Parts: sequence; structure tokens; C-alpha cells
Amino acid sequence: MPLTSLPEIMIEPLVRDALLEDLGRAGDITTDAIIPQNLKWKGALIARQVGTVAGLDLARLAFRLIDPAVTFTVKKPDGSKVKPKDVIATIAGPARAIITAERVALNFLSHLSGIATETQKLVQAVKPHKARICCTRKTTPGLRLVEKYAVRAGGGSNHRFGLDDALLIKDNHIAAAGDLRTAVKRARDAAGHLVKIELEVDSLEQLKIALDLPIDVVLLDNMPPVVLKKAVALVKGRFLTEASGRVTVDTVNAVAASGVDLISCGWITHSAPILDIGLDEFLSP
Amino acid sequence: MPLTSLPEIMIEPLVRDALLEDLGRAGDITTDAIIPQNLKWKGALIARQVGTVAGLDLARLAFRLIDPAVTFTVKKPDGSKVKPKDVIATIAGPARAIITAERVALNFLSHLSGIATETQKLVQAVKPHKARICCTRKTTPGLRLVEKYAVRAGGGSNHRFGLDDALLIKDNHIAAAGDLRTAVKRARDAAGHLVKIELEVDSLEQLKIALDLPIDVVLLDNMPPVVLKKAVALVKGRFLTEASGRVTVDTVNAVAASGVDLISCGWITHSAPILDIGLDEFLSP
Amino acid sequence: MPLTSLPEIMIEPLVRDALLEDLGRAGDITTDAIIPQNLKWKGALIARQVGTVAGLDLARLAFRLIDPAVTFTVKKPDGSKVKPKDVIATIAGPARAIITAERVALNFLSHLSGIATETQKLVQAVKPHKARICCTRKTTPGLRLVEKYAVRAGGGSNHRFGLDDALLIKDNHIAAAGDLRTAVKRARDAAGHLVKIELEVDSLEQLKIALDLPIDVVLLDNMPPVVLKKAVALVKGRFLTEASGRVTVDTVNAVAASGVDLISCGWITHSAPILDIGLDEFLSP
Amino acid sequence: MPLTSLPEIMIEPLVRDALLEDLGRAGDITTDAIIPQNLKWKGALIARQVGTVAGLDLARLAFRLIDPAVTFTVKKPDGSKVKPKDVIATIAGPARAIITAERVALNFLSHLSGIATETQKLVQAVKPHKARICCTRKTTPGLRLVEKYAVRAGGGSNHRFGLDDALLIKDNHIAAAGDLRTAVKRARDAAGHLVKIELEVDSLEQLKIALDLPIDVVLLDNMPPVVLKKAVALVKGRFLTEASGRVTVDTVNAVAASGVDLISCGWITHSAPILDIGLDEFLSP
Amino acid sequence: MPLTSLPEIMIEPLVRDALLEDLGRAGDITTDAIIPQNLKWKGALIARQVGTVAGLDLARLAFRLIDPAVTFTVKKPDGSKVKPKDVIATIAGPARAIITAERVALNFLSHLSGIATETQKLVQAVKPHKARICCTRKTTPGLRLVEKYAVRAGGGSNHRFGLDDALLIKDNHIAAAGDLRTAVKRARDAAGHLVKIELEVDSLEQLKIALDLPIDVVLLDNMPPVVLKKAVALVKGRFLTEASGRVTVDTVNAVAASGVDLISCGWITHSAPILDIGLDEFLSP
Amino acid sequence: MPLTSLPEIMIEPLVRDALLEDLGRAGDITTDAIIPQNLKWKGALIARQVGTVAGLDLARLAFRLIDPAVTFTVKKPDGSKVKPKDVIATIAGPARAIITAERVALNFLSHLSGIATETQKLVQAVKPHKARICCTRKTTPGLRLVEKYAVRAGGGSNHRFGLDDALLIKDNHIAAAGDLRTAVKRARDAAGHLVKIELEVDSLEQLKIALDLPIDVVLLDNMPPVVLKKAVALVKGRFLTEASGRVTVDTVNAVAASGVDLISCGWITHSAPILDIGLDEFLSP
Repeated sequence: MPLTSLPEIMIEPLVRDALLEDLGRAGDITTDAIIPQNLKWKGALIARQVGTVAGLDLARLAFRLIDPAVTFTVKKPDGSKVKPKDVIATIAGPARAIITAERVALNFLSHLSGIATETQKLVQAVKPHKARICCTRKTTPGLRLVEKYAVRAGGGSNHRFGLDDALLIKDNHIAAAGDLRTAVKRARDAAGHLVKIELEVDSLEQLKIALDLPIDVVLLDNMPPVVLKKAVALVKGRFLTEASGRVTVDTVNAVAASGVDLISCGWITHSAPILDIGLDEFLSP
Repeated sequence: MPLTSLPEIMIEPLVRDALLEDLGRAGDITTDAIIPQNLKWKGALIARQVGTVAGLDLARLAFRLIDPAVTFTVKKPDGSKVKPKDVIATIAGPARAIITAERVALNFLSHLSGIATETQKLVQAVKPHKARICCTRKTTPGLRLVEKYAVRAGGGSNHRFGLDDALLIKDNHIAAAGDLRTAVKRARDAAGHLVKIELEVDSLEQLKIALDLPIDVVLLDNMPPVVLKKAVALVKGRFLTEASGRVTVDTVNAVAASGVDLISCGWITHSAPILDIGLDEFLSP
Repeated sequence: MPLTSLPEIMIEPLVRDALLEDLGRAGDITTDAIIPQNLKWKGALIARQVGTVAGLDLARLAFRLIDPAVTFTVKKPDGSKVKPKDVIATIAGPARAIITAERVALNFLSHLSGIATETQKLVQAVKPHKARICCTRKTTPGLRLVEKYAVRAGGGSNHRFGLDDALLIKDNHIAAAGDLRTAVKRARDAAGHLVKIELEVDSLEQLKIALDLPIDVVLLDNMPPVVLKKAVALVKGRFLTEASGRVTVDTVNAVAASGVDLISCGWITHSAPILDIGLDEFLSP
Repeated sequence: MPLTSLPEIMIEPLVRDALLEDLGRAGDITTDAIIPQNLKWKGALIARQVGTVAGLDLARLAFRLIDPAVTFTVKKPDGSKVKPKDVIATIAGPARAIITAERVALNFLSHLSGIATETQKLVQAVKPHKARICCTRKTTPGLRLVEKYAVRAGGGSNHRFGLDDALLIKDNHIAAAGDLRTAVKRARDAAGHLVKIELEVDSLEQLKIALDLPIDVVLLDNMPPVVLKKAVALVKGRFLTEASGRVTVDTVNAVAASGVDLISCGWITHSAPILDIGLDEFLSP
Repeated sequence: MPLTSLPEIMIEPLVRDALLEDLGRAGDITTDAIIPQNLKWKGALIARQVGTVAGLDLARLAFRLIDPAVTFTVKKPDGSKVKPKDVIATIAGPARAIITAERVALNFLSHLSGIATETQKLVQAVKPHKARICCTRKTTPGLRLVEKYAVRAGGGSNHRFGLDDALLIKDNHIAAAGDLRTAVKRARDAAGHLVKIELEVDSLEQLKIALDLPIDVVLLDNMPPVVLKKAVALVKGRFLTEASGRVTVDTVNAVAASGVDLISCGWITHSAPILDIGLDEFLSP
Repeated sequence: MPLTSLPEIMIEPLVRDALLEDLGRAGDITTDAIIPQNLKWKGALIARQVGTVAGLDLARLAFRLIDPAVTFTVKKPDGSKVKPKDVIATIAGPARAIITAERVALNFLSHLSGIATETQKLVQAVKPHKARICCTRKTTPGLRLVEKYAVRAGGGSNHRFGLDDALLIKDNHIAAAGDLRTAVKRARDAAGHLVKIELEVDSLEQLKIALDLPIDVVLLDNMPPVVLKKAVALVKGRFLTEASGRVTVDTVNAVAASGVDLISCGWITHSAPILDIGLDEFLSP
């Protein structure tokens, strides 16, 4: 899955809001009081941990929205693997602007790189199996589009972006419909021709009923690898198979070995710790 | 520190944006297709881990903004400790609205409860020392006000809310000013009478210079407990002392034993895993 | 395709903006000057043409946002067919509010009903063939979500909601990729597992190349019915077939007779004339 | 009426919202997947019908907001008449940006040019009479300012922009006031010295009562040309006369021949079909 | 000029923004810390000066947006004259909400009442002459619509609301056009039929040229009363006459005695001191 | 207190909204009609009164947001004292843009300079005493951040920016708590370590109780200078002392002579008349 930039028009509001949240009603009063207006600095964003980078466009924007005179040069683009002391990007320009924007830039970059890093760990762990790692809708409110991007930067694949771009039939939908067949039928009648339908099942019995239904993907919820293997055998390629449920870096390879096409994991977006990245600053020579 | 509600006017935009992010351009197409419009459901938000609750007002709003007919009854208010199977809140109303709003409600509640839970662990761990646990500006972009609230729900205390409500003089400010004294003098000249000044030092030598300067708090950065103890002894209550730097649940008691007034920790807002909370739904009898 | 309401949270900003656009900086100065504040009126939204209704929730909101005291009772819900003099909804409440909100309510209702009406004409015209009528991205800027809803109200089906919820490979994508196979391969590598791929072809030669490619839908662009029929025969149900290109109410049945699954039509959203609907008002007895 | 540009500050929010509506949460996934990032293209906006152009500033902005590197050169400025194959503007720059912005640019340009085209037909049709063609408040919600601009581009004149910039006394105002004289008196007492008053009458009897009232314009509603002629004779230039009511290109000359000063027409904004304009793209040589 | 309420949809964003500006990122920390959540209070908005009231709807909204449980009962509606100790409105409800919203409510109410009060002084001072007092575009940025409302509450009349609802030809327009006649001709050609034209002249010589031009109002800039009188005599009712230029409460009667129709005054919106109003609170019995 | 610029990201929304408020739905119709598009002008912002300048960044932005081709050269930066005929800034560029943006630029500049001017008068008047002049939360709704900036430009100091950045315990808080000690205790328990507490007292008796309480500032409300002097003597530097209550330029020196640290004054933000500044324009030679 090639990684492409997010159009600036989509991420600018996020960066703008984060800066205003930090500037409050009086701006960076420490920096304004202490640092001379014409002082120039250089700096570098430095990795302090092993990981995968994501979010450089947001970091760049944070500096630029404070002062367009800040230059930002990427050394390790999004999707790159880094180790401690690697220079991710260099920065140069007015010292005040660099310090004022630093925290917001780092908050975005370390949060998104954290997601990319956890994703990449899972991606590495499933080799040599075909399974793709994908995310869920368990994202941080307001940041879904950039968190989904970070998953791609980590080598993962995206699940639904929201409630509206695919149908995912869960247990409560089935309960409300009365039975699984009725639920799928209603879904198929309502779905546009470019909208896929995924069905969640939690047992092989449910899966057997689903085998001849017009769905695109089946979500095998909380099944151990041995059951997943049976499920994949039953499906025989009729539709894609997705495994989900408390998958970790330690368990993911066994899950992938079952032959499923996809493994989804909420953890990578809702609980990934940040990737530790620092901004080392020094006076411009 | 008593915990008070956030005025709805402050959190409503966050919940509204999160719902619109999830609804996209077509809304919950699965639920609309399958679940009858007049079906009523009941449900309960159930803890699946030990932890501390935060964010119920945001969860409640998520349901109400989709349909005011949903009732939401709190059983374990923000700040409560919960264990697996505890009912945090009960919900009743139109099944469609409950399912449509569920993910956004849980995304807020589990994220903020995760922060409260990690905070509370640190708060417990520092006993019987006087040190208060506090947060930093290392928050998720756009969510600072609710994440700071979650820290309070977990028994913690808040550091600066932004760049504008206190002066925090760091190493790069001192470098730009030339020396520590000049930096503090400029800060004092600029600060309003209701604005405090905190100074970051990273050695006892720096601290000694600071002892007679007009500051309110000293931030003792990355000092081991034994050095912190010496620092506290040097300060002798002239101003508050705050320790920071890679504090964990395992190390925090030793840090607190040094006698510092405050221990700040970025982790609790930028890397806390969620508290696992589920919504169990069932047909209204 | 069942028709469901749009969540109010999604349409309220549109109605609010339209009201503010009309109220300007001084509000309804004519009504405020002339009509007594406590006068109550009744009124009815009356069809003046044969057509299909869509947009009642937006009309209702227009009145309610001006004054919650206005009641709005639907007689012919969205999707209903109406003829001249049919009462679509009745209104009662403060005369000032009714007159002030009238134009915005009618602008939404008559625009969306116009789209539903044209869609319904095409839907009727393709009978007894299986083809579904669908829309395009040629919508009025800012109104896509409600115009797509109006298409559903008229019995039509929705195509992509935007650039992001399905891949549609057009001639210029193929030109940039060098050839059709490469374009589809790149698309497939990039597409998430819940995202469909549609390929536009403009000749049977192109279609033949596409036959063994992993696509979900083929868009047969600007082909006469006789060629469409050959195309459908070639495809043999491998993927869905969509016809497009200057289809009118007069020609659509012939297109449908070719056996295609879908017929898309830009006209129904970008050039549908309004459905003429009036608000007849009278003093409350 | 000279045609002037709309300040960018007024139209940028419209273009921005339309782009975001189309980009959704993942952007142009087809183009990102298939078209190389450094590919440059040229293109031309080509008329496919006879008509009048309006909206080039919005089209230009659509490309620029996606990528400032796209150049946009106008060949037929707003207000120009075009025939099939006429080049309206040329475009050059990154292929991805051109394709991503294309649909939004065309949606604005073809919609507004459609309005200008219909307006211009009426303007031509009333010659050699003095009557000016003007619009109404029956505009597409959210687009009033640009639709009114398109009317000017088509040679028309603008009626009220909203409820607040002139008083228009209609039948229901008169009904609420009790009689026509009272309504006009209340309006006159309330109107600022820079605000005009227009009165709608639907019979010569009503008009006779109005003759000595302090109004600026009379709206002669739904009167056939022969009655309009009598009305104009009665008014004798005391105030301006405006005819309205289901005027078409075929009937407008007869209406104008009555000697009225203005002919207003809702159709030109609420039901004008688009002007068909295409974007022909080709590789940069 | 009858005074009517501003629709809530127009003023709510102003009140909401003002509250958020005051609440910042942590809300009313003093009140939350000290005042019990279930305490009820009563209070009264009390005039402390002689003046005219304006802005009660904004004050009411400030309380309601913090807590809908606050009741607000108007005793002296907008436009009323008050003297010290007069009760303008009473308030009852949760003590916290009353205190939290108090400052924003008073900031609106005292600012707008200040404008109404200064306007009313001028209105009283011009009696028994016919001249109406009107405002200008010299308003506080962001508050024009409510400041113009306050002028009406004070018995004044409104000038243009913006650059777009009337043409006002000033000296620099004339300079750019070359001469006064050309300027007026260009204005007339461009103006819609519901848009008035006002011309600013600064000498009787200029006025004489203007006498036969198609304008609606003449602005007599900075002329002493004796010259104004000559100007009025020259105009002979051909169009309205407006005097402007450093008019004060002391000089306005002499200006009005010249016979002009209107006297405009920037001071009443840009430099009116507030009307001193306090909120007296007491425990609910 | 050094004066620093406001980051553009903080003030741009204010200027943008003010321009849109003035442009309405049709823009500057007078200027568009009369002034040729390619005409260039020069101009100068000229002081017409003695005063202190504030707000040049907002004025500059007003021109730039209408047309980036306008150059704006500051001659008397914010904080400068000016006298009649002083050139504050020069402007050059397209005549249309200069005229269109003029009123908004002047509305900001004259309003904020008015505040700086009044502040500076008080600052001069308290010499040679140490007291600093500070503002309150009695600001114009929506403009707090720039009005507080103007106070700094006038040599004043800022009080709280909102309800959330310091605790200010007033009489009604004390009443609700039951007594002063309880109120302060609750405040101290709730306050973060970087948040100061100020206590309002209105008598020496109250002050005596406060002397041993953990507060940072005492607000001495409405005390005559002789009482203030006694209060200062009682406090003996334990915490800062702030005097407030109807201080004027005439009385402020006597207040300062009491030895208080701060004198706060609502008047400077809520009732300062504008500083008269004009824009003289002339054709570019």
C-alpha cells in the first residue's frame, strides 16, 4: 500500500486548533518575555527510540503557521524506520517561533509515530503470512483521519473510516433483525453498489449460515487460531476473512498462520504509547 | 482537589465533531438498514478492567446529540474506581440511536478513563508522601481540556493549560537569555501579578543560583531521588519543588520520598492505554 | 432501498447557515415592522406539481430554528408522490416566525423534491428491467449529503459520496499509469479491504482487457444500448455493470433493456428543476 | 451593470467546504494510488454548449487550495459568451492536484455558468425594451452570494440579498396589518433612510390604493401583459414597476413590452440547468 | 421605529463565543471550588445610572447557555429608561451558573445599554426638530448587528449595515472617478433597483452640482449649522439630507434646527461609555 | 513589561470576521462601481489626537486579507505616543482594496489605541509611585485578547484573562462558603500549583482575617486612599495588594500613594473612547 501525503487542506484545521489550544489568550508568554525577536536558531527532530515515523506534514505545519520563515527539511519521511539519535527533520528560523510551536509539533509527531510504530511491529510479526494488519473505528475523537494515515505509514491497512463507508453487521444488528439472514438481506437491499458488507460472526455455526450469503468480508470475532483455521477452510475464498479480538504482537503470528486475510486491532490507535522524539535546538552558527 | 463538571458549552463541540467524523456523509448505514426505527433498547456501560472513570458527560452527550430521547443514568460518576463487571451507567431509548452513538461515546469514555486510571495509579503509589501528581502539556492535540479534566478525575493536579497561563523557563530560554538570572529577570518583568513563574534546572549548581531568584516553582529535571532530596533541602520551602523525567508507577514512590511537592508525568496523557469499557445492549423488556 | 432520516446533527448546520444567509445583519425587517408579535398563524405546504417529496426534515428545522413554538406536521413524508393541491405538511405557530423561515424552508424542500422527482421519473421509466438509477459526484457544492438523500427518496441509489469511499479509475488515470492493467494493479494494491474498485471503459476492446482484472464494477461510458448489450454479455456477471452518459427519461428504458445493473445520471442532481411547492398561510381561527 | 470580482475572502469558505466534502476522510484515493506524484499535466476547461461563463474565481481557487503550484489562465472571463469547443481557461501543474480538484471546480463553474446562461437568454429576449431582468431570494441554500453574482455575470440585476436589505410587503403582511395602507405605514416608520420599500400588489384595484403611498417599487404579481401595461400607465413613474410570475424566455418580451422597469424570475437561480463544461487533460509536452 | 427582538439564531454565536472566551480551558475554577453544586440563588440586574436599556436577550442567553435552569425575568425591556436602583431583570437558579455567566451577561448588557443611552440623549436633544439620529459603520468589530440594534433601542435609526446594502460615494470615490457626475453615473449604473445611493459633499458648490443627479440622500459633511440651513434650502426636498461631523449632545440641536432629515454620529457606537449595571445576588429564601 | 506581537494565527479570525461583517453578501458595491480596478493609491494613517498606538497588526491584516498586494509600513509601532498629524503607518497598493478595508482597519486601530491611550494616562498619573495599572475582565465580548494587548501597549499590566487562569474570591463566593476562611481553604485545595489566588475584601476587618491565609494577592475593593494606606501597612508585604473601584485619572495618584502594588480599572477596556485616527489617501504619483 503506497503511502501518500494528506492534502494540506485536510490537516490544517487540526494543526491550527492545536496551536490555538496551546497559545490560549496571551500566547507564549515565556518565550516572548525572554527570547529576543531577531534571534535565529537551528534545531533537529531526533528519535529517542526505535520506531516508525508518521506525521511530518503536521509537524511542519505547526511551525509554519506560527511563522512562515521557519524552514523544515525532512530527513526520514513518514513510513521510515528510525533508531535513537536519527535525525528525522531539521528546522531553522526565528528562535521564538521554533520554541512556541515545538510542543504542538511534537505532540502530533510522537502520537502518530507511536501508532505507526505499533502497527509496524504487528506487520513485521505476521510475516511470512499474507495477513494484512488493519485498524478499527476505535480512534481518538477528532483525529481519525490522521490516525488512519499513521496506520498506513506503519504498513497497515485501513478498515472503515466511519459508519457510512461500509456496512458492518454486528451481533446487535442481528439481534434486532431477528436472525442473521434477515440482517444480511436488509443490508444488501440498502447498500449502494460501491459499498461493501462485512458480517461479524462469533462461532463456526454462525459462519456456516453465512456461507451462502451475499457478503464481502466476514469478521471472525474472538476465535482462537485453531478455530480461525477451520473458519478459513469453510469460507474457501468465497469472501475475505478478518480476525479480531485482543491480538498482540506476541499472538499475531499464530493468528496470521490460520490463513486469514486481515487482522484488525483496536490497540494500535487507541492505546499506542507515543514514539519518543525530541527537538534539539542550538544557536544558529 | 474536588472534581467538578465541565460546562457543557465547553465539551459539546468536541462531541459534535467526533460524531460528525464518524457519521461521515451518509450516517450509520448499517443500523439504518437493519434496525427498525421504533425499536427500544436498554444497555449498560460495563467496566472490563480495574480502573478510574472519567468522561461520562461526553459519553452522555454523544447519545443525546444523536437522539434526545436516550436516557443516560450514571452509576459510577467520574472519579469512581471500578472493577470488571461494574455498571458505570445505564442507557435506554431508541435502539438505532444507542448503536449509532456507541463508538463515539466509548472512544471518549475509555480514552479519558485510561488517563484517570494511570493517574490514579501514580497517586496511590506516592502515598504516604505529600507529593501531588501532575500532568504536562504533552496532551493529544485538540483534547487538552478534557484530558486535564481526566487527570483531576484520577486524583491528579493540573500543570499549565497552555503557553499563556504561567511562565516556564526552560534550558533553551536560559541559553537565549545568556544566563539564568537574566532569564528570570525578563520573566518577572513581563509577568502579570496573577501569573506564576516556574524555572527548570537540571543540576544542583543551577539550583543554587536560583535560590534567591523571584520564582514560584522550580522544576527539577531528570534528577535521581538522592539528588532530588538534596535539592529539596537546598530550597527549604522558598518555593515549590517539582520533579519530572521518566517517572513510572514503580519509581514514583522513591521520587516522592525525596520530599518534592509535585511530580509531573507526560505519560499519563500521551501514552495511557484506554480503560476497557463495553456497552452491553439488550432488548427492552 | 429503505429511506431513513438524516440525523439532525448532520443537517442542522446547513439549515442554520441558510437562515443566517437570509437574515443578514438585521433580520426580517418587513415582518418585524408589520406583523404583530403575538399573532398566530396556520399554514400548509402545498404541492403545485406532480412529483416526489424530499427534504421535510430540513424544512421543519428552518421553522424550528427561528422559533421552537412552530409546530410542523408531516402529511406526505419524504419519498411520497404528490399531485397539485396535495398538502405535504401543515404548520402552526407565531406568524412572524412562519413568514421569516418560509423562504429557506421552501428553498430546501423544493430543491430536494426536484431531485427526488427527476430520479423517480427515471426509476419508473426503467421498469420492468432490473437496472437501478444512481447519482454521481456532480452535485451542488455544499449540499452533497442532502442531494444524495433526495436521490434515495426518489427511489434511486447512491454512487460514491466522495473521492475517498471507492476507487473510480477513469481515462486519465489509465493514461497516467501507462495502461489499464497497471492502473488496476496500483488501485488494488492501495485499496483497503472494504473499498470497492470501479473501472471506466469506453469500448468493448478495453472491456475485454478488463475482464480478468480484480474489479468490482465496470463503468460503460457513453455506449449505445446495442453496445451495452454486448458488454453485458461479455461481463457475464463477473462484476457489476454501470452505464453512463447523457441518459434521459426518454432513452433510459432502452439503456436498461441492455441488462446493465446500474444507470448513473448527473442530471438528476446538477440540473433538476425544483418541484413547485407553496406555503399557503391563513390566520389561525 | 459592470461585473466585478468577488473578494476572495468571501468565496474561499465555499470552495474550501466543497473540497472537504469531496475529499472526505481519506482524500482522492484513486489518484493517489495510480498517478505518480511528480507527473505534470496541462488541461483546458472547454465549453460544450452555447452559454455565458460565471464562476472562474471559484474554479481557480479549487485548484489552488489543493496545490498552489497549479496555474490557471483565464481565456473567457466571467460574463463572456462561449460556444462549443471554446477554451474558457487553461490549467497546468501537478497531475494529481488537477484531477483531485477537477470535479469541485466544474461543479461550481457549470452551476454558476448555467445561471448566467439562463439570465442572459432573458436579457437578450427583452430587447429592445428597457426592462432589466432580476433574480429573487429563491436561491440554492448556502450559495446566494455567488448565484447573485452569476445573475450579474449574465447581464441581470439583483433583487434583495436577504430579508434585511429592503422591505418587501407581500399579501400576508397586508393581511396581518389589516389593510394595505397600514402595512405601508408601519414599513415606512421602521425603514432606515437607506432602505427601500417594495409593495406587492396583485390587482389594479390594489395598485390604485398604493399610488399615493410612500413606496419605492411596486411588484406587479402574476399580471398578464395587458394588465401590466395598464399598471404602468397608472403608476406614471411615481415609483419603479416590477413584474413577476412564471416568466419564460418565450413570454418575457411581451412582459417587457408593457413598459415595466424590472422583470424578476426565480427560475434563473433555482432551476437553471448547468452549462456543460469539460476539463480536457493531456500530458505536459 | 418599533423595536423588535433579534432572532436568537443571530445572537447566539456572539454569546457563545464570549462565554468560551471567559471560560478558557478550565472553566470558572473559583466558583467550582467554593460554591456548592446544589446551592440556589436569586439575583437582580440593577441600574446604577440613568440610561436606556439594550441587550437583555444577550444577557439572558449568557445565563441559559451555562445552565438552562436559570430563569430570567425582564422588568425593564430593551428601550426602557432606567434610573439608579431600578430592577432591570430578576434571575433565579443555580448559584454557580449565575456567578459564572454574570460577567459576560453584564459585559453585553452594559456595553449595549451604553450605546442606547448615548443615542437616546441625542434623540432627546434634537426635539422638537424632525431630524432622526443615526449611526455609522464605526462599530466595534464583530458586534455591528447588536450595536445597530442598541442604536434602535435608544430611539435612533440605522445607517448602512455594511459596504453592500447601499452606495455611499465619498471624496475618494469622486477623486478616483475624476468628477462628481461620473461617480454618480457609475454608481447609478451599478446599483440594483432596491439599493439607495448617498453622496457625500463638503461644500455648497459641490451640492449645487449634485442637485440634479439621481441620488437618494446627500451627506453634508462637516458643515456648520448656518451652511447646513442653506444646503437644506438648496435641496428643497429633492432627496434626503444627512448632516455629519463631530456632533455632540450640546451641538446637535443647532444642527437639527437647520432642517436636515438625519444626523449621523460615529461616537454613539465607537466611544459610548458603558451604562453601569450591577448584579445583586442573594441566597434564595 | 516588554510589548510583543500577537501571533497572527490568534488575530486573523477577528480581522476576517470583521471584514466579512462589513462586506456582507455583495462586497463594497460603491468602490467596485466607481473606482477602476487597476488604479493604485498611497495613503497614510494619521493621528488626529494625542495618544498611544495599539493594533497595527490588525490594521495591516485588514488590508492584506482584502488584497495581499497592499503594502503597509509602520512608522509608529504599537506603544508609541503620537500627536496630531503624526504618520502612524503608510499604505500603498490597489485603490479599491485600500478603500474597501479602510473602515475595518480603522475600527480596530482606533478602538485599541483608545484603550492604550487611557491606560497610558493612568500609567503617567501614578508616577512616581510603584503601582502598576491593570485591567479587568470587563472587556468587549469577543475582543478580550486584543484589548488586554492594548492595555500592555499602553504600559499597563494584565489581570486574569478569564475565569480559569487564577482564582478570584469575591463577596458572593464568601457568602456561599459561609465565611472567608472556608472560601480560601476550598480555593487552595482546588488550585493547581501554577495558579494564584486573589481574595477580595471590602474592609480592614475582613483584611485582618485574611492576613494569615494562603493567598497571593488581596483585592482592596472601594477603599479610600487613607484606608488603603492602613491596609498596605497591615499586609506588610505578605502578599500583593490591589486597589480597585472607580479610579479615574484625577484620583489615581492618591490611590497609588497608598503604596498598593496594583490598581485595576475596568474603565480602560469598557469605556475608553477611540483614539481619532484617519486614513488620508492620495493618488500614487
